Amino acid sequence: MDTFNKLAELFRQFPGIGPRQAKRFVFFLLSKDREYLEELQELIANLKDHIVQCGECFRFFQRRNDALFCSICADPNRDTSELMVVAKDTDLEAMEKSNMYQGKYFVLGGTRALVERKHADKLRIQELTDRVSRSVTPSVIPAKAGIQREPLREIILALSANPDGEHTTDELKTLLTHFSIKISTLGRGLSTGSELEYADKETLKSALKNRSES
Amino acid sequence: MDTFNKLAELFRQFPGIGPRQAKRFVFFLLSKDREYLEELQELIANLKDHIVQCGECFRFFQRRNDALFCSICADPNRDTSELMVVAKDTDLEAMEKSNMYQGKYFVLGGTRALVERKHADKLRIQELTDRVSRSVTPSVIPAKAGIQREPLREIILALSANPDGEHTTDELKTLLTHFSIKISTLGRGLSTGSELEYADKETLKSALKNRSES
Amino acid sequence: MDTFNKLAELFRQFPGIGPRQAKRFVFFLLSKDREYLEELQELIANLKDHIVQCGECFRFFQRRNDALFCSICADPNRDTSELMVVAKDTDLEAMEKSNMYQGKYFVLGGTRALVERKHADKLRIQELTDRVSRSVTPSVIPAKAGIQREPLREIILALSANPDGEHTTDELKTLLTHFSIKISTLGRGLSTGSELEYADKETLKSALKNRSES
Amino acid sequence: MDTFNKLAELFRQFPGIGPRQAKRFVFFLLSKDREYLEELQELIANLKDHIVQCGECFRFFQRRNDALFCSICADPNRDTSELMVVAKDTDLEAMEKSNMYQGKYFVLGGTRALVERKHADKLRIQELTDRVSRSVTPSVIPAKAGIQREPLREIILALSANPDGEHTTDELKTLLTHFSIKISTLGRGLSTGSELEYADKETLKSALKNRSES
Repeated sequence: MDTFNKLAELFRQFPGIGPRQAKRFVFFLLSKDREYLEELQELIANLKDHIVQCGECFRFFQRRNDALFCSICADPNRDTSELMVVAKDTDLEAMEKSNMYQGKYFVLGGTRALVERKHADKLRIQELTDRVSRSVTPSVIPAKAGIQREPLREIILALSANPDGEHTTDELKTLLTHFSIKISTLGRGLSTGSELEYADKETLKSALKNRSES
Repeated sequence: MDTFNKLAELFRQFPGIGPRQAKRFVFFLLSKDREYLEELQELIANLKDHIVQCGECFRFFQRRNDALFCSICADPNRDTSELMVVAKDTDLEAMEKSNMYQGKYFVLGGTRALVERKHADKLRIQELTDRVSRSVTPSVIPAKAGIQREPLREIILALSANPDGEHTTDELKTLLTHFSIKISTLGRGLSTGSELEYADKETLKSALKNRSES
Repeated sequence: MDTFNKLAELFRQFPGIGPRQAKRFVFFLLSKDREYLEELQELIANLKDHIVQCGECFRFFQRRNDALFCSICADPNRDTSELMVVAKDTDLEAMEKSNMYQGKYFVLGGTRALVERKHADKLRIQELTDRVSRSVTPSVIPAKAGIQREPLREIILALSANPDGEHTTDELKTLLTHFSIKISTLGRGLSTGSELEYADKETLKSALKNRSES
Repeated sequence: MDTFNKLAELFRQFPGIGPRQAKRFVFFLLSKDREYLEELQELIANLKDHIVQCGECFRFFQRRNDALFCSICADPNRDTSELMVVAKDTDLEAMEKSNMYQGKYFVLGGTRALVERKHADKLRIQELTDRVSRSVTPSVIPAKAGIQREPLREIILALSANPDGEHTTDELKTLLTHFSIKISTLGRGLSTGSELEYADKETLKSALKNRSES
């Protein structure tokens, strides 16, 4: 196979890209000057050296000064008594952008598909139990001796409100139950833009249960 | 204007119907036999005699034996201490289908548009305050003497989670505040199918606040 | 079944209308005043008396003075040497609007589905052969004695460029071949908005064959 | 700006890619193993050395043995009397896949936007007139002495049937008129899937004009 088709094949693996758009990507690159191509190539070459996974929460972050932990995990002002489990980096980003949460995170690495014969996914189940184990008792941050961390008091399972998310939530609950820590899930209800007429039973039930006095 | 175009004009007023589909409706009717046309014509002719608005909640219902009230309003087993205000009949239907609510309803007749110079809409504001006034004190159902109704203790404003719905909710709160009754709104949060990554700030905030221990 | 659901059932048969929109139609009618409902009902009641099928081309037209033929068939200035066979009234309307054709029409009443066990459709096959038979020899218009009609010299099969249209075209060719009249089909090629990149083989082939010198 | 956002910025320039998908591309790359990344990086690095533009028709092709011309331009069996001008490589590919054309090509490099103040585009106008000039008289292929090429007798302007395509076609006609060669454009008509009812006037006009006897 020639260069064109080899490159198109690689682009086809990009999320959401079909064969036609993969080819358009190659033609696009052919139309760009060498400067653009060199920058692209270099960024891809250095990607895994520059962006690494946090040793604590497993999100990706730009490494600076050989830091092992991301800015959130290294931040002494974040509340260590709460741990929010999200499926992926972009979920964490959305939550951070909302500016509503001050606790810590754990990036699970995906959700477990409801229908799947074997666990082909690579969820960080062991890493999660390790993370929780380390946090259930008060501790002193090694790096900054003297500052005491609050022990973990609540795990918030923040998976999406779809079948895979709910299935994963159920598995995690079972897994984490022996820690005797409060485990909570995100509230269900009407999301922004929801119309009553089209809401399903589960949503209406939660909306009614979670109704708030004004 | 000829019959064809007159009829197409009327169909164009149907919700969601453009000029092309309005014409297709006329051609469709031309293709049907006289039996179908007669049934359609007769049902339309009798519509307003057969389907009337409930004198209590203003939903439409099939009149039987000159009943003035719909089956929900006439049902002595529904909880009279809760009144849910919905924008339209289909919202009420969705809530009934969910089987989660045992109280009474009030159909407001729409929502108030956020941007609107004058109140051209026909919301049943006066009817709502009358309805609430009648229900704040314990009463005896006239038709079934002896059965005591619970006084109204909570008004649930169940408008959609969009700008018009929220605007209407705010207006109703102001309007109803002097009754000194608990006023609540449906809970916000992740609705079924919501993905964290795409959720807006308001939804995430509510989802976090309404999180439930499992 | 009650009035509401009976009427919704009838609306569900309208082209392109699902159960939810059918219900919305009923709620819409309930919201309209009696004047609108009466006009709608009356137009439906009189529809088949006011709009009839042309005895010559079978298109629908508003009957005036007990006319048996539509304005096109009655027009002495239209070219009787050309007969365009279209599937339905709206196709004829599109062609008339283009202002490109001066001949006569025949509305077939649909196309024949490529996969269909028996001929459940009601194509006007017999009526078409009758129509052609009557026109192959010069004749005198009975109603306007003295005006001689041109004999039919070309039948243009103007079906859509999709499988059903092509299948029907093939059937009609076979059917009409013994008349020894020129039979033509609409030209294929790039239609307005077509992009070369996405054009299929058949379209490109025709576009190449039908290329025009400028 | 950090590596992540720099790379996302470059992906945003890819055709059809918005900011969100650009980010997903970076996360996707972070999830892939080094092997994939190295292959991708290497293919991009070598792209412009391996894939070059044909010196004759300007399409991109995989260079082999320092060939200056693509396989079509180098093919002695292609008809040199016809030259098809297409906007871009993918148009040429679509035409080749249809297997209907045996002549030569010229890739213009785009179309000229109808509304554009200055000619910021890089259409190969000069290259096209050079190409035509060289071909109007019979010549001998230098590389394969003795084989006589047919002189150019027809230029087929194969631009898309949209405003920009038509505008470009008009410009090219004016530009090429002094060569006194036949200039043709692709045939217009019903493209595959076209329905008569929705066809515009221009398409119906061409479909009628280009109708073919069967």
